Amino acid sequence: MSENPNKMRAFLPEPTLRRLPWYLAYVSMLRTNGIEHVSSTQISKELSVDASQIAKDLSFLNIKGKTRIGYEVAQLERELQDFLGFKEVHNAVIVGVGSLGAALIHDSGLSRYGLNIVAGFDINPNIAGTTLREVPIFNIADLNDYCSRCKAEIGIVAVPVDQAQEVADLMIAAGIKALWNFTPFRIRAGKGIVIQNTSIYSHLAVMYNRLDSQKNDEE
Amino acid sequence: MSENPNKMRAFLPEPTLRRLPWYLAYVSMLRTNGIEHVSSTQISKELSVDASQIAKDLSFLNIKGKTRIGYEVAQLERELQDFLGFKEVHNAVIVGVGSLGAALIHDSGLSRYGLNIVAGFDINPNIAGTTLREVPIFNIADLNDYCSRCKAEIGIVAVPVDQAQEVADLMIAAGIKALWNFTPFRIRAGKGIVIQNTSIYSHLAVMYNRLDSQKNDEE
Repeated sequence: MSENPNKMRAFLPEPTLRRLPWYLAYVSMLRTNGIEHVSSTQISKELSVDASQIAKDLSFLNIKGKTRIGYEVAQLERELQDFLGFKEVHNAVIVGVGSLGAALIHDSGLSRYGLNIVAGFDINPNIAGTTLREVPIFNIADLNDYCSRCKAEIGIVAVPVDQAQEVADLMIAAGIKALWNFTPFRIRAGKGIVIQNTSIYSHLAVMYNRLDSQKNDEE
Repeated sequence: MSENPNKMRAFLPEPTLRRLPWYLAYVSMLRTNGIEHVSSTQISKELSVDASQIAKDLSFLNIKGKTRIGYEVAQLERELQDFLGFKEVHNAVIVGVGSLGAALIHDSGLSRYGLNIVAGFDINPNIAGTTLREVPIFNIADLNDYCSRCKAEIGIVAVPVDQAQEVADLMIAAGIKALWNFTPFRIRAGKGIVIQNTSIYSHLAVMYNRLDSQKNDEE
């Protein structure tokens, strides 16, 4: 039995939550390679994260390392997966089945991390009524009806910028609790609604700038 | 003529670089709606970013707002696009044409933000030799040869975690200057190589945690 069953739902700092998947990726790799134990010093060296930071991050989990041996790899992997919610099934609907939306439905990696896209919605009548990788695509007009029947808590926003807020409002009215926003638009929502922004295009801006300033240094 | 031609290549703080695309998305929407001027106060209200922060962010650009009128929307949009490099063509190769890699090739949004995927590479002999959305897919063994001929500076890493470092090393040896890493693995590279990590799965961890702690609050 776990020492503290409520640990699971603690509100964690975002930087910690972003580092934990790095540790998970690393220990999964170790397990695949047959390694049984790993120390925080070793993780630190491999991932360039301070060892004390790693110990602090892992202190949120129900796991303890042993002196001179470190963490048990298989147990650490399991605890990280449980803790991060990657082993649970989180139902999601996606609005906007254009290029990016379709790409997300195609990415089976998401389901390996616990995200189950149960339906897509679009305003395009040529798309509504079709199926993409076994995910049914409906007309956006059916969103409210569908969401009240299905148990989706997560709504993925993959529409053009100028429709982002409207779609978010529709989703919230339909009972969606968390918005995963792939547009560069800042969606506003009332208290109690989780918003996660993932604008992959703004990462391009960072990369282009770093490339440019690198060249500038060399000139 | 611009006041400071070197402004373009200044090394900007990452938070600024991530906010600029928000402003761009917003002013593009304004332009589409026929709005001609916008003040930083207005942008501030709409995007929930401090007005002084916006003024500071925009000070990196060759643009000045006018008292009581604000910024000219069309000019601001153009300057932001130029500054962010979204109007230039940046050639990229992608290694790993599995689920995520194929999804990225399918996403035509990337080309609208200046990213031109010229080729894909994979170890799977069933994929090598095919074409995906007019992007040729080659065997990974041809990476070095291809890169020395094409002018790709960006390498997208979309392979399984345990191959990320190896693929990164191959790309760097082939002359790639910036790695866009979609794996949760912390790639190491020598000085002068730009690394941009975009692990969309770790965003899921943040969202799941927020959803869970939200529910905890309600109980």
